[in-house]
Amino acid sequence: MTEDELAALEKRMIELAKKNSEYIRKEMPKAEAVSYFSQKNDEYKLDLLSNLTDGEITFYTQGNFTDLCRGPHIPNTGFIKAIKLTAVAGAYWKGDEKNKQLTRVYGVTFPSQKELDEHLAMLEEAKKRDHRKLGKELGIYTMSDDVGPGLILWMPNGTVIIEELEKLAKETEQEAGYKRVVTPHIAKESMYLTSGHLPYYADSMFPPMEMDGEKYYLKAMNCPHHHKIFDAEPKSYRDMPYRIAEYGTCYRYEQSGELFGLMRVRCLHMNDAHIYCTKDQFAQEFKAVNDMYLKYFKIFGIDKYIMRLSLHDPEKLGQKYVNEPALWLETEDLVRKVLIETGVPFVEVKGEGAFYGPKIDVQIWSAIGREFTLATNQVDFAQSRSFKLSFTNQNNEAEIPLIIHRAPLGTHERFIGFLLEHYAGKLPLWLAPLQVKVLPISDKFLDYAKLVSDKLKKADIRSEVDDRNEKIGKKIRDTELLKVPYMLVVGEREMNENKVAVRRQGKGDLGVKGVDEFLADAVSEIKERREE
Amino acid sequence: MTEDELAALEKRMIELAKKNSEYIRKEMPKAEAVSYFSQKNDEYKLDLLSNLTDGEITFYTQGNFTDLCRGPHIPNTGFIKAIKLTAVAGAYWKGDEKNKQLTRVYGVTFPSQKELDEHLAMLEEAKKRDHRKLGKELGIYTMSDDVGPGLILWMPNGTVIIEELEKLAKETEQEAGYKRVVTPHIAKESMYLTSGHLPYYADSMFPPMEMDGEKYYLKAMNCPHHHKIFDAEPKSYRDMPYRIAEYGTCYRYEQSGELFGLMRVRCLHMNDAHIYCTKDQFAQEFKAVNDMYLKYFKIFGIDKYIMRLSLHDPEKLGQKYVNEPALWLETEDLVRKVLIETGVPFVEVKGEGAFYGPKIDVQIWSAIGREFTLATNQVDFAQSRSFKLSFTNQNNEAEIPLIIHRAPLGTHERFIGFLLEHYAGKLPLWLAPLQVKVLPISDKFLDYAKLVSDKLKKADIRSEVDDRNEKIGKKIRDTELLKVPYMLVVGEREMNENKVAVRRQGKGDLGVKGVDEFLADAVSEIKERREE
Repeated sequence: MTEDELAALEKRMIELAKKNSEYIRKEMPKAEAVSYFSQKNDEYKLDLLSNLTDGEITFYTQGNFTDLCRGPHIPNTGFIKAIKLTAVAGAYWKGDEKNKQLTRVYGVTFPSQKELDEHLAMLEEAKKRDHRKLGKELGIYTMSDDVGPGLILWMPNGTVIIEELEKLAKETEQEAGYKRVVTPHIAKESMYLTSGHLPYYADSMFPPMEMDGEKYYLKAMNCPHHHKIFDAEPKSYRDMPYRIAEYGTCYRYEQSGELFGLMRVRCLHMNDAHIYCTKDQFAQEFKAVNDMYLKYFKIFGIDKYIMRLSLHDPEKLGQKYVNEPALWLETEDLVRKVLIETGVPFVEVKGEGAFYGPKIDVQIWSAIGREFTLATNQVDFAQSRSFKLSFTNQNNEAEIPLIIHRAPLGTHERFIGFLLEHYAGKLPLWLAPLQVKVLPISDKFLDYAKLVSDKLKKADIRSEVDDRNEKIGKKIRDTELLKVPYMLVVGEREMNENKVAVRRQGKGDLGVKGVDEFLADAVSEIKERREE
Repeated sequence: MTEDELAALEKRMIELAKKNSEYIRKEMPKAEAVSYFSQKNDEYKLDLLSNLTDGEITFYTQGNFTDLCRGPHIPNTGFIKAIKLTAVAGAYWKGDEKNKQLTRVYGVTFPSQKELDEHLAMLEEAKKRDHRKLGKELGIYTMSDDVGPGLILWMPNGTVIIEELEKLAKETEQEAGYKRVVTPHIAKESMYLTSGHLPYYADSMFPPMEMDGEKYYLKAMNCPHHHKIFDAEPKSYRDMPYRIAEYGTCYRYEQSGELFGLMRVRCLHMNDAHIYCTKDQFAQEFKAVNDMYLKYFKIFGIDKYIMRLSLHDPEKLGQKYVNEPALWLETEDLVRKVLIETGVPFVEVKGEGAFYGPKIDVQIWSAIGREFTLATNQVDFAQSRSFKLSFTNQNNEAEIPLIIHRAPLGTHERFIGFLLEHYAGKLPLWLAPLQVKVLPISDKFLDYAKLVSDKLKKADIRSEVDDRNEKIGKKIRDTELLKVPYMLVVGEREMNENKVAVRRQGKGDLGVKGVDEFLADAVSEIKERREE
């Protein structure tokens, strides 16, 4: 079957659907079913039957078509109102490349044509918003065969976004009482033997470098380095909670076939931090982290999100989970209470917690309804013990701290990939690599355009002049393609009156404004990180 | 001889010096000299004589002491006014560990006691200012056996300094028209075969990681990655000069015995940038880089510096130097002119240029007169060719750009090490990890102290309250030890009048000021990066 034949097939399906023909279910003894397919010489159904138990074999009949099927089905074809066959592809029987190749037809159906159309429009929009396409068009990132797969080279425009995100994180974290650290990208084998990442996580780590008779590894996470900083000076209860943050760069090995644009990479810049706290401080610290997530969701206009609270399984204590039953129940309950109090939507999943404590995975949806896993927020009872971390409590005894691992903005790679789709590349002013382009309608106004642009630059607005000898229409079209938030058109009138004609990306002409007025508006839009 | 005997020896030397006894020089035939030392059974002098040619043997006699010596000497011991014997150590004859061990006495003498005292004070001061000692006392950095030697873990206080330096670099570079990029820390072997770092620089690189049948190396420099970014999009003369900057983290292998605090490390954060320009733009770009160095010297109060202009050797063109005689002379002349025009002190050194072009090494002296090599500034004709970089010139032809490599602030590691010594840990306000400490004279004024501190924090001043239940004298002494620039003492009077009693590190009491007045002064001191 070719893709061209799909349209004809789709049409025929709609015709058949209109017949309101019923789906009739029938149970059948295995022997009878085998006999049925033997007569038809159907090797595939016989293969399926060989794995089924007698008493669970069901058939469905619709019109003159009868087949083996577990069901369920809709009662009759009249329920089918809208069909789109989207693709045809070769597929090995049972997904095994040693078996014969068959043809698989992909299609979707919705209860109404409107819903189908909306779904198809979303897919079409997702294609236009593909971060790999936008990443190239907007000069965000590149890759190179000589550097290696999954290793992102951030170009100037992408680096502006990175720096704005880091600025946001630093401001937010400073206000929340975090201190910052900087750690190397490598450590000795002994570090990862202590943390337990070796040998259990070895497959996800880069291979070692052998030097001075020691093995060194690229770090796949920042925690062990942070623990060493916690441990560098004696701590007392007065130092707790001790919160340290780093936009740490980690390296993780992914199969090259799994790599995908910014979404799955081998070098990750992580909005990481670790909070070392007492049990009494835990609930408040965890709530503060949760509030930080919500603050970020608001800034980025993320309306749809869910938190997935992963718990331990009491039957696997001491095997899959640290054997601290009371601590598990206590922290799980604290985490649950925080989620309930803050009113965020969440689901609980038993048996998916980390080895060292309960965790929350954060799922968000982009503006066009695609789902992304953003970040995790984890409680940790175990690593403090492995790294022998402690603080002196008020009774002058050594006490083991709890650790919260958190990364609300995830990694630059995945988050910027998400933002490109979410905003269709039309980033809010504060994040836009180029914020303003000044377009003189002819060379006569070039000096004035430069004067305006320089004034904006002095106020830390990223501005450029389109000094090409081109018609104003072309200048506007080219700037639109680069998704620059503001275009300031300047000609005779604007120059004489110290004004600019303002065009906003996606909103068109906003009329003529004084230069100072535009500047003040833009500065406040940036400062408040508004999304308009 | 023991160290304890040095004082007695020193005393005796002074006594002898006072005798104004002459140094008498005498030439001697080799045979006579050999006979002289044979009689004395002096195997060492006989060993020395065996390597000397007849006719060049000289002896000196002073008092009743006669010895083989090339000279010159002072005319008589009366010139000796001040002596300090500083150390005694074992030393192998001729520095060869296979030879016998002798005793070496170290000492210095100056024409006056005053000069000797100044020199000794400088050495004493250098010990106090040792960046390793200050680094620990001030919580700047730490290291860990599990991470590895030469790999710095930057603690919160050190990270503040890093971030302030990066902020300065980013501001300065943005104003100078640089764009920023972010690149991974690894690349494939093929990258370093193209750049020529492999095999020639392999000894200074970390060993490879073998993955997916390829060798990956930690980067020892950022240039190749930057070249890939230059090459990611077609460039025209309109894009030139193209300046890209990154605080790139590089890894260089140093023998573990060579590692020294922050001065010699294996992980370096480099204030790197590459400028791709046309030949016509070169002089102006090079001058701009030079001006940037001078700007930084001024900010950091570096009064004494020299630039070392390293040139090619015409006899080694095509071997040690790229075979472009005209380009060498042309760029060397352009560089020389820039140095003369800007009036910076410089020396020229033939035959020390890089393979790919002339370079400038920058030498600076700290406040106590110790010399540091800070950074280099290099011209490059070769790498554009190796990486096949080009831009379309105004005649629509592909042209090869010149590249300037520059790193005015060197690496965080060495520069922060230098700054700790230069400022004796008393960093200027803008660089200080903690800028203000508010000291309530009793708990009664704790709330007011917090109010003041919060107000400062809102203005981005790094401020803390000393909320311990301690006497004010102790609070002041402890804060002095941490070298916090401002202490604000608050009591009854200050609280009632909304004032603070200001103490400045190194200046003592500055009197009582209104909170807003202090805040405005501090903000301007930070903004102007003043050094007072």
